[in-house]
Amino acid sequence: MSEHVYKSVEITGSSTESIADGVRKAVSRASQTVRHVEWFEVVSVRGHIANGEVEHFQVTVKIGFRLEAGDQP
Amino acid sequence: MSEHVYKSVEITGSSTESIADGVRKAVSRASQTVRHVEWFEVVSVRGHIANGEVEHFQVTVKIGFRLEAGDQP
Amino acid sequence: MSEHVYKSVEITGSSTESIADGVRKAVSRASQTVRHVEWFEVVSVRGHIANGEVEHFQVTVKIGFRLEAGDQP
Amino acid sequence: MSEHVYKSVEITGSSTESIADGVRKAVSRASQTVRHVEWFEVVSVRGHIANGEVEHFQVTVKIGFRLEAGDQP
Amino acid sequence: MSEHVYKSVEITGSSTESIADGVRKAVSRASQTVRHVEWFEVVSVRGHIANGEVEHFQVTVKIGFRLEAGDQP
Amino acid sequence: MSEHVYKSVEITGSSTESIADGVRKAVSRASQTVRHVEWFEVVSVRGHIANGEVEHFQVTVKIGFRLEAGDQP
Amino acid sequence: MSEHVYKSVEITGSSTESIADGVRKAVSRASQTVRHVEWFEVVSVRGHIANGEVEHFQVTVKIGFRLEAGDQP
Amino acid sequence: MSEHVYKSVEITGSSTESIADGVRKAVSRASQTVRHVEWFEVVSVRGHIANGEVEHFQVTVKIGFRLEAGDQP
Amino acid sequence: MSEHVYKSVEITGSSTESIADGVRKAVSRASQTVRHVEWFEVVSVRGHIANGEVEHFQVTVKIGFRLEAGDQP
Amino acid sequence: MSEHVYKSVEITGSSTESIADGVRKAVSRASQTVRHVEWFEVVSVRGHIANGEVEHFQVTVKIGFRLEAGDQP
Amino acid sequence: MSEHVYKSVEITGSSTESIADGVRKAVSRASQTVRHVEWFEVVSVRGHIANGEVEHFQVTVKIGFRLEAGDQP
Amino acid sequence: MSEHVYKSVEITGSSTESIADGVRKAVSRASQTVRHVEWFEVVSVRGHIANGEVEHFQVTVKIGFRLEAGDQP
Repeated sequence: MSEHVYKSVEITGSSTESIADGVRKAVSRASQTVRHVEWFEVVSVRGHIANGEVEHFQVTVKIGFRLEAGDQP
Repeated sequence: MSEHVYKSVEITGSSTESIADGVRKAVSRASQTVRHVEWFEVVSVRGHIANGEVEHFQVTVKIGFRLEAGDQP
Repeated sequence: MSEHVYKSVEITGSSTESIADGVRKAVSRASQTVRHVEWFEVVSVRGHIANGEVEHFQVTVKIGFRLEAGDQP
Repeated sequence: MSEHVYKSVEITGSSTESIADGVRKAVSRASQTVRHVEWFEVVSVRGHIANGEVEHFQVTVKIGFRLEAGDQP
Repeated sequence: MSEHVYKSVEITGSSTESIADGVRKAVSRASQTVRHVEWFEVVSVRGHIANGEVEHFQVTVKIGFRLEAGDQP
Repeated sequence: MSEHVYKSVEITGSSTESIADGVRKAVSRASQTVRHVEWFEVVSVRGHIANGEVEHFQVTVKIGFRLEAGDQP
Repeated sequence: MSEHVYKSVEITGSSTESIADGVRKAVSRASQTVRHVEWFEVVSVRGHIANGEVEHFQVTVKIGFRLEAGDQP
Repeated sequence: MSEHVYKSVEITGSSTESIADGVRKAVSRASQTVRHVEWFEVVSVRGHIANGEVEHFQVTVKIGFRLEAGDQP
Repeated sequence: MSEHVYKSVEITGSSTESIADGVRKAVSRASQTVRHVEWFEVVSVRGHIANGEVEHFQVTVKIGFRLEAGDQP
Repeated sequence: MSEHVYKSVEITGSSTESIADGVRKAVSRASQTVRHVEWFEVVSVRGHIANGEVEHFQVTVKIGFRLEAGDQP
Repeated sequence: MSEHVYKSVEITGSSTESIADGVRKAVSRASQTVRHVEWFEVVSVRGHIANGEVEHFQVTVKIGFRLEAGDQP
Repeated sequence: MSEHVYKSVEITGSSTESIADGVRKAVSRASQTVRHVEWFEVVSVRGHIANGEVEHFQVTVKIGFRLEAGDQP
């Protein structure tokens, strides 16, 4: 990690399939507009139910990325 | 949510396959006898081990449902 | 409390006005179908937002009541 | 645990003697009206004081039981 | 929630009147510069005291909004 | 805060009206006998129920005050 | 609880016998110098070990008492 | 559980596939060198990100096993 | 504590009698194979139920001991 | 600890230098007016920022001391 | 705090020297691109180890700043 | 982290100087008898007080190391 400074943000991805897939959705969305995304941590797993079945897993993850010169924390 | 009142209960579903499947088992069991089941939140993931392998994932979820007139909280 | 046995349930009341009002809604609903309701504790305060304004406060409370002979915990 | 589904409820037992006795009161009350009660976990230990002495230990436990076909979660 | 991705941020609003009013201040400020603000959760309630009286309630809320294409998480 | 040293105490105020009012009761009582009361933080909101209605909101707050020379922590 | 204001303090009692006895020691000590002691809550149970055996149970309890006019919080 | 004594250790398994698979890796590794492994509990789910995608799920589990005579806790 | 280094491990003892007895079982088992066991802290109290009665209290404690030269942490 | 009874209080010390120094400030202030101060535990580390730099570390510690006959808890 | 609205972000600074230095790195980086930075709170202290020695302290802090008109929360 | 499996242990180091130094003591002791020590996380900071001054900072850290074939978790 050397002298780098990091920021973490909280993102929620959703999936009809699995919790891992919800994590992947959140991570891949974050990576579209932020560089140097390096780690994640699952914060909560929730979801909606419709007609007696799980509709979506909503997975909230903290995602950490390295700040570059000029990035606004 | 308007003026509705909700109740949440804690249910544990088990699966030999995945954590998502344990959630689905808990949700679908709750929906057999309670109406208006609307959301869930994963509370813990535990399990038993036999012969050095995971036997079951036991997934405890809070499940929320809307109370109707006359339902006992 | 003497030798009584108590049960607590988790109920969510909603209000457009205040958090205290959300508590009152949850408590009064529980009291319609359960006797001997004696105490509450606020667990979380959440809510929905529409058009940039708070739509409802959704107040989740643990509500405790004394069990009588024959009540199902 | 196989494919069973479980529910847990929160019950408070009280005792003038000991914390273990408060747990036993809560467990034995739950077992009067619910079948298949299998485990407990102590959540909190509180109590009232009168004349400078402990009057009752009030022990809150989560109690888990197996749901049978038709049981309402 | 479908396939949407959400971000949550932590905002503190203050009010001399009530906790609900502190929530409204935070939510309405967030909505001025962010679109698709959908939910909140109260994280903490603090405040300053002056001359022996509460000066402000400072209510910290997590506020969640839907990310659109191109929004920076 | 400079080189000051602070102490915090836990006080419970009650109100039939609102949570904010319970905070004010606790703060104003603390200020009657302690000087330099500067901040508070809400720790829990509980209450008693009578005849199916909320009787009192009991709001527990941590209250911080600056220690002066000779004050006993 | 009416309009009373309460303070809670953290006291650790010790016992070679049981956890309940550690609570009683803490409560009875608090009651020697403070009036209107009304409730307690167990915060932690620790202890020292000597020669491979438990020497003392050290039970930390929050103890609540009603403040009278002029009592210093 | 009879009169048995148990120890729990914290192990992190990793998987590119799923969270359940990370649990299985941790459990199966623990079972190679310890006997009587009986239960697990998921403590945290983290992971590394490379090129904007999840590289590994790192699943930390508490794993409990029964101590035999002579085993070092 | 001087310049010593300590390690803590998590052990579960069980008792049909009391929580204190479960702690003693865990401590005395740890002391059979580890030297310099100095303190404990109760982490959780759970148990199994059979025929509507508590079968065992299962008390999980963190147990701390001083590391000597050459001990493996 | 023998049969002693202890009380713990929450004190915040501040330092421009280090967190350890903030702890020392809190401990040394408590020791000026209370006897038998024996242990501390860090509860939180916060601080104020001015002109883009840390102004003070504000370190809140729980401080435990032995009660003597007649001390008010 | 008057009628201001605040936002808090989570930043990780690293230092080979001390925890206080890690806080200063995080705060000073945040202040380069954000105005009105006013307070911080330490969330976690972690780090990497190389060749048996601490390589870096990685200190995660919540940093709060006042929002101005037009700032995006 | 690839397909590695990790174990974490809880070690307490002490220092008369600083919290960072307590971490270094714990890490360097763990590294004497365990290979592949890779990360740490501070769990608690406590200490003893003598003659009104801090005697030692006792810093408890979780320390993670990679398990090799044949290592006992």
